[in-house]
Amino acid sequence: MKTYLDCIPCFMEQALRVGRLSTENEGEIKEILDNVGDMIKDLPMESSPPEISMRVYDKIKQVTGNEDPFEDVKIDHIKKAQKLYPHMKDILEESDDSLLDAVKLSIAGNIIDLGVSKTFNIEEDILKSLHLELTIKDFEDFKNKINTSKNILYLGDNSGEAVFDKLLIEEIGKPIDFAVREKPIINDITKKEAEMIKMDEVADIISSGTSAPGTVLNTCNAEFIDVFEKADVIISKGQGNYESLSGTDYPIFFLLKAKCDVIARDIGVPEDSLILMNNAKKS
Amino acid sequence: MKTYLDCIPCFMEQALRVGRLSTENEGEIKEILDNVGDMIKDLPMESSPPEISMRVYDKIKQVTGNEDPFEDVKIDHIKKAQKLYPHMKDILEESDDSLLDAVKLSIAGNIIDLGVSKTFNIEEDILKSLHLELTIKDFEDFKNKINTSKNILYLGDNSGEAVFDKLLIEEIGKPIDFAVREKPIINDITKKEAEMIKMDEVADIISSGTSAPGTVLNTCNAEFIDVFEKADVIISKGQGNYESLSGTDYPIFFLLKAKCDVIARDIGVPEDSLILMNNAKKS
Repeated sequence: MKTYLDCIPCFMEQALRVGRLSTENEGEIKEILDNVGDMIKDLPMESSPPEISMRVYDKIKQVTGNEDPFEDVKIDHIKKAQKLYPHMKDILEESDDSLLDAVKLSIAGNIIDLGVSKTFNIEEDILKSLHLELTIKDFEDFKNKINTSKNILYLGDNSGEAVFDKLLIEEIGKPIDFAVREKPIINDITKKEAEMIKMDEVADIISSGTSAPGTVLNTCNAEFIDVFEKADVIISKGQGNYESLSGTDYPIFFLLKAKCDVIARDIGVPEDSLILMNNAKKS
Repeated sequence: MKTYLDCIPCFMEQALRVGRLSTENEGEIKEILDNVGDMIKDLPMESSPPEISMRVYDKIKQVTGNEDPFEDVKIDHIKKAQKLYPHMKDILEESDDSLLDAVKLSIAGNIIDLGVSKTFNIEEDILKSLHLELTIKDFEDFKNKINTSKNILYLGDNSGEAVFDKLLIEEIGKPIDFAVREKPIINDITKKEAEMIKMDEVADIISSGTSAPGTVLNTCNAEFIDVFEKADVIISKGQGNYESLSGTDYPIFFLLKAKCDVIARDIGVPEDSLILMNNAKKS
């Protein structure tokens, strides 16, 4: 997905919001905004939003010297998600279609996102989502592809969300590579958080090599690209991964909640829709 | 009121939104955003938001060549407000406290504002407001001051809103100067719209001389400053006039709806509060 003009005020809003969470020094926050303002005229609008917002977040790190401002927040989200885990397990055990419900739960987990300005309540919002319908529901394709695939790659997104990804990976019950970001970026998952939730019990944790809040291929490492190219199916979680990969032709299923107006319009669904989309079928 | 860091993403959002209403040329809109981005590092944050947003709107005019992009919108708002006028007159005739209700209606009219990103429905929102309480209600002070004042100055704000200001001016029933902006800025009222709603039947229309979306005194003309300085009481409508005058000690009553989080926090009220505030009493 290219970057839309609407993304520009949003980058500025993210710079302010994340700047504030990274430092209490008003001068530093103003310096971040000055720098992001200066960037606008040189933004490659044909690039995806995560490719550009990486520059914004790099600037925040550079000005504040805070490499991982969301360390505590990520732990808090993980704990809240883990508290729901046993209950979610029970739901899946009693479910008529546990794979579909695990998909829904994993998409619902995508609300745990600090890159978008919406507020969320992990417990309430996740439980509510089980009763919602998917707006794009390429579930039969997904099930068939998973059943026939040997090399499955799962692209992680936010830290707390990964607890629900683990549920889905357990439901799939096959060997899976779970990709994390190389460096802390917003509340996205890195190796550290993946180990915290014991993702290694159900998948091989690999780093994509990027510090973008998405899978920006030209910033990924060679080892990851090799796994990515060889995958029979790629399960892509969240907006950032969608934004950076929707323009490609890889065998991807995008699982996300369309949390902003721009991405909803790009996909062609109402805002806040839950999406399970076969990349091969996109219009 | 000084400009807060939160105002910066908002300037960018206004630039995009008003840019889009001024031109369909995406390149021009991007040029506006580039220019506004460049401005950020030199913004005098001790100035009020209208003083700064004047620069944003000047840039939009300069890039698009469109001096009055909201000409049609203003007429539409005026027509919608005028449609409600007879009904409002009936309400005031039957009211136990017609001055208070006229104040409320005039504050309710302050929703008709394109400078803030919120959407509004003129008919619905105005009628609803009659049942709302004022959060700051210096009404007794206001009534006493109006009764004892000879020179009354009324600072207009948005175009459609002025239909409700006219109701309040009729209710006051004294000679009043009604100040308008010198040049079109967003949907603020100028002489042209004031004449359209026949404001001259109830007040003397004067120009403040400014093209800011507020009463930025150092951009006003000498004639206006003279009236302003001599006024026994100044009735200031809307956010822009509040933002530009709240730091002064003039005998002002601010009538506004606190439509954004920043101004609500500056005043110390919940967002969307209806305010009638005596400037002499501010903390």
